[in-house]
Amino acid sequence: MLLTLPCHGALVAGIVALLAIAVAAQDEPGPLAVATQGSFFVGGREVHSTTLSTVPAYAPTGTITVDQMYVRYQVPVEGRGHPITLIHGCCLTGKTWETTPDGRMGWDEYLLRKGHAVYVVDQVARGRSAASPSVINSVKLGKTSADQLPPVFSAGHEAAWAIFRFGSEYPQVYPGMRFPLHAIGEFWKQMVQDWHDALPTPNPTVSALSELAIRLQGTVLISHSQSGIYPFQTAALNSRGISGIVAIEPGACPNPDADLAPYMKLPILVLWGDFVDRSSRWAPRLKMCQAFAEAVNKRGGKVENIELPKVGIRGNSHMLMQDTNSLEIADWLLAWIDRNIAGRTTQ
Amino acid sequence: MLLTLPCHGALVAGIVALLAIAVAAQDEPGPLAVATQGSFFVGGREVHSTTLSTVPAYAPTGTITVDQMYVRYQVPVEGRGHPITLIHGCCLTGKTWETTPDGRMGWDEYLLRKGHAVYVVDQVARGRSAASPSVINSVKLGKTSADQLPPVFSAGHEAAWAIFRFGSEYPQVYPGMRFPLHAIGEFWKQMVQDWHDALPTPNPTVSALSELAIRLQGTVLISHSQSGIYPFQTAALNSRGISGIVAIEPGACPNPDADLAPYMKLPILVLWGDFVDRSSRWAPRLKMCQAFAEAVNKRGGKVENIELPKVGIRGNSHMLMQDTNSLEIADWLLAWIDRNIAGRTTQ
Repeated sequence: MLLTLPCHGALVAGIVALLAIAVAAQDEPGPLAVATQGSFFVGGREVHSTTLSTVPAYAPTGTITVDQMYVRYQVPVEGRGHPITLIHGCCLTGKTWETTPDGRMGWDEYLLRKGHAVYVVDQVARGRSAASPSVINSVKLGKTSADQLPPVFSAGHEAAWAIFRFGSEYPQVYPGMRFPLHAIGEFWKQMVQDWHDALPTPNPTVSALSELAIRLQGTVLISHSQSGIYPFQTAALNSRGISGIVAIEPGACPNPDADLAPYMKLPILVLWGDFVDRSSRWAPRLKMCQAFAEAVNKRGGKVENIELPKVGIRGNSHMLMQDTNSLEIADWLLAWIDRNIAGRTTQ
Repeated sequence: MLLTLPCHGALVAGIVALLAIAVAAQDEPGPLAVATQGSFFVGGREVHSTTLSTVPAYAPTGTITVDQMYVRYQVPVEGRGHPITLIHGCCLTGKTWETTPDGRMGWDEYLLRKGHAVYVVDQVARGRSAASPSVINSVKLGKTSADQLPPVFSAGHEAAWAIFRFGSEYPQVYPGMRFPLHAIGEFWKQMVQDWHDALPTPNPTVSALSELAIRLQGTVLISHSQSGIYPFQTAALNSRGISGIVAIEPGACPNPDADLAPYMKLPILVLWGDFVDRSSRWAPRLKMCQAFAEAVNKRGGKVENIELPKVGIRGNSHMLMQDTNSLEIADWLLAWIDRNIAGRTTQ
């Protein structure tokens, strides 16, 4: 029904501008309406140390807080579906999900524009989430032996090239591979020193993710690579607040012979790019996840283990959220979420 | 002039919703219209190392990229005035400017709502900007002596208490001090390990800030505490792209006896909270900046060195962008920018 009402010219001008924004946001990266945004931490514990510093301006003895997880979020004005939590992988931070190396929109904003609240984390001891320098300073001061230093590491470009499956080895490229290699220098800048091997198992990120999920009263946990096992460990810790799990090229799936009860009632997707069978690092992991999926499904659960080439999407590297068809994959993923988790909207 | 035009009911309903958003954004933290947002890095250089890792899964030898600076930005739909670049201080990250420990809006969003494009950085080797673990692993492997370890430090809560001027010493509180101490635990979670003492002088953040300023074709550099000197060093490197400098409680001002030419044509504000004269750490720094301001002004430049209590705003700690009156200070600061930099709009 259309009514004809009087209205004012100035108002109409404002309306036209605002509607232009609203329309543009549907189809192309025009302006964006954000209901709320911000950042906070979950988790964290206090530790006391006598070797916080060797710098004169800062006292060596005191208390610091570690094991907290940084979370940045945006909630759309027109919300639909579940909040989505994005968990980066090895040697990277939440930057993984932001603007791509070649300057295209990241999944953080794209999922928001599609109506989902989006929560981007930095794993514990990575990026904006603190690590403790206590042992480093203790070794520097001669109080602790050098072999006790935390195994903080960085992935070199050359080794990372094969790990991220740009090609079989540096600098070869798989034919049709879709990572924007012309901007590879910008990707290398995303990589940071990684403390995860210095942390206990399960990584404290897992309990922080559980706290976040409970706070959100329902979220889809989307992990990548080294964080791949975290959503499963989070579900094993406490199923509350977990609407579903998407593990993108996980470093590991749960052992098929372990207790599978935590996974029986959750919608779970394990997602793989292309060229996996050519990679000695990733081919066994794909097999492990296939075995996990079969074991859960045999008992009546629902795990989908999807290789993108088998659904017609080819050429994706390990960094598929940054590949040139990243938004096509996001659309596919959103459709999977709608099919499998739609009835559980909690937002 | 108001015109009366016919328009459709459905359109009016949409308009009312959109106008409600627009109006709310003016006065209270309602929805926000963002023209563009994203993140990128500036700066960065490649280094080769044979001690990137002691972890078997990651090769020890390879190339990494360091000295890049992470930048997250948002540009408002209704822009006015200059882009603002926010540079955090010691032991902190860009989180400094986001949601406050007690959950109020950060300056990053507030300045955006006031029409400024906002760029929030993580200093080189802090947060999402990489540091190199090469020397740590070299020491762990016995190739380098322990005293060569980088002086990575964390500030303990107890020492930080006085540094941030919550009180004269932990856990005393200055009367009327405005930091939200009921949420102090959330503030401690913002603090991270700090590598800045392991970096050359000037800190590589300075050249990255220059690159950013040039890219933005005009930005107000707002520093805090340990980064206080960076905008001055950036101006000394290259004045291009710097619309003005705001140093909030800087760790240092330029030496009054040094070459002051880089500062003669820039609008410069040095801003201080309360209780400075009671602090042995901060009182001398205030004096240093007074001397710098006098030296520049004597030669015809324009540096304002403002203590907030002297303009009627009392009770502020060193973390004034998180104090309970943080938005009142932001308003004061925006008015200063409008008075002093308004004619230079480049956006």
